[in-house]
Amino acid sequence: MKKVEFWFDFASTYSYPAAFRIENLAQSSNISIVWRPFLLGPIFKTQGWNDSPFNIYPAKGNYMWRDLERVCESVGIPFRRPSVFPRNSVLAARVACFFSEEPWLAEFVRRTFFENFANDRDISDAAVVGSILETVGQPADLISSAQSPKAKAKLRTVIEHAVSKGIFGAPSFVVGSELFWGNDRLESAIVWAHAHAQD
Amino acid sequence: MKKVEFWFDFASTYSYPAAFRIENLAQSSNISIVWRPFLLGPIFKTQGWNDSPFNIYPAKGNYMWRDLERVCESVGIPFRRPSVFPRNSVLAARVACFFSEEPWLAEFVRRTFFENFANDRDISDAAVVGSILETVGQPADLISSAQSPKAKAKLRTVIEHAVSKGIFGAPSFVVGSELFWGNDRLESAIVWAHAHAQD
Repeated sequence: MKKVEFWFDFASTYSYPAAFRIENLAQSSNISIVWRPFLLGPIFKTQGWNDSPFNIYPAKGNYMWRDLERVCESVGIPFRRPSVFPRNSVLAARVACFFSEEPWLAEFVRRTFFENFANDRDISDAAVVGSILETVGQPADLISSAQSPKAKAKLRTVIEHAVSKGIFGAPSFVVGSELFWGNDRLESAIVWAHAHAQD
Repeated sequence: MKKVEFWFDFASTYSYPAAFRIENLAQSSNISIVWRPFLLGPIFKTQGWNDSPFNIYPAKGNYMWRDLERVCESVGIPFRRPSVFPRNSVLAARVACFFSEEPWLAEFVRRTFFENFANDRDISDAAVVGSILETVGQPADLISSAQSPKAKAKLRTVIEHAVSKGIFGAPSFVVGSELFWGNDRLESAIVWAHAHAQD
């Protein structure tokens, strides 16, 4: 089956609508999704940023918040501007990365984004992440495995992998050696996978 | 008639496909276009950049060049990476800004983008801009009026206007108080104008 890799960070604003759009789009084109949770922070640091560029460049940030509101409305998902931005997404990313092949992963991803961008809950809080795990039918103590040295190393490797693919923002979609950046480019990535990628 | 303001810089890569797409899209929705040539350079300077962010951040730049190639292919316009980037667009912007209401403006805009991004010609060269003017049926010496104090002041005012609207990149589309950034968002701007803007 043809594949699209979906690279996202739970703190990334436009990754939220992308996470809610991707499954329908992929299914209707018979494309499978490879879930690739990662962290933008370490990549931003190599560009000299210690904060989100949306905070560093206010005109860009002001635009993004308004635009995200419009985008979420058009997708039909609720949006409330998080009281803390960007939220620390390390714990949630470790869980999603360590369990990225599990059948409950997609639902965990959507619910985590929803807590951050619709319910303004602190997704760096283990109690919040634990409750999300429970709503997808998993024990909250999966968090301990996601904090193991092995899980931490897995996420670090995935981030290095992102850098080697030229990823510099989220969401990003990868089809073979082709990179597509931004929620707006999801359709292009699916079309590309359909037309060019090998099974 | 409902309106979309099209803010562009002749040095801006994604403004090139936008300039070639906007008339068909606007006409089919019965929307008129307000041509708003401006300069990104002074806006980038206020963000601490003395160069294009595509040069400052190589991962972003590498992505953009490949992406632009794909975008131009899908739009059906030729693309050759300019040997100088960003090209100095001050002269071309002064011409387009000073004559922004003229009936030949749209064609001048497209041909100027084409020289930069398809023919790799130096659009800061008065001879090149003069020859573009001639191909749209105008005398090359319109350049002197476009270099007058009045024309220079007009462009400066337009740039201040851009900043006051929250514009931070190009292409940007403005409908009333709504801002849309990027070639990818042209369709959203047109839909917005159709649905929300007053005649």
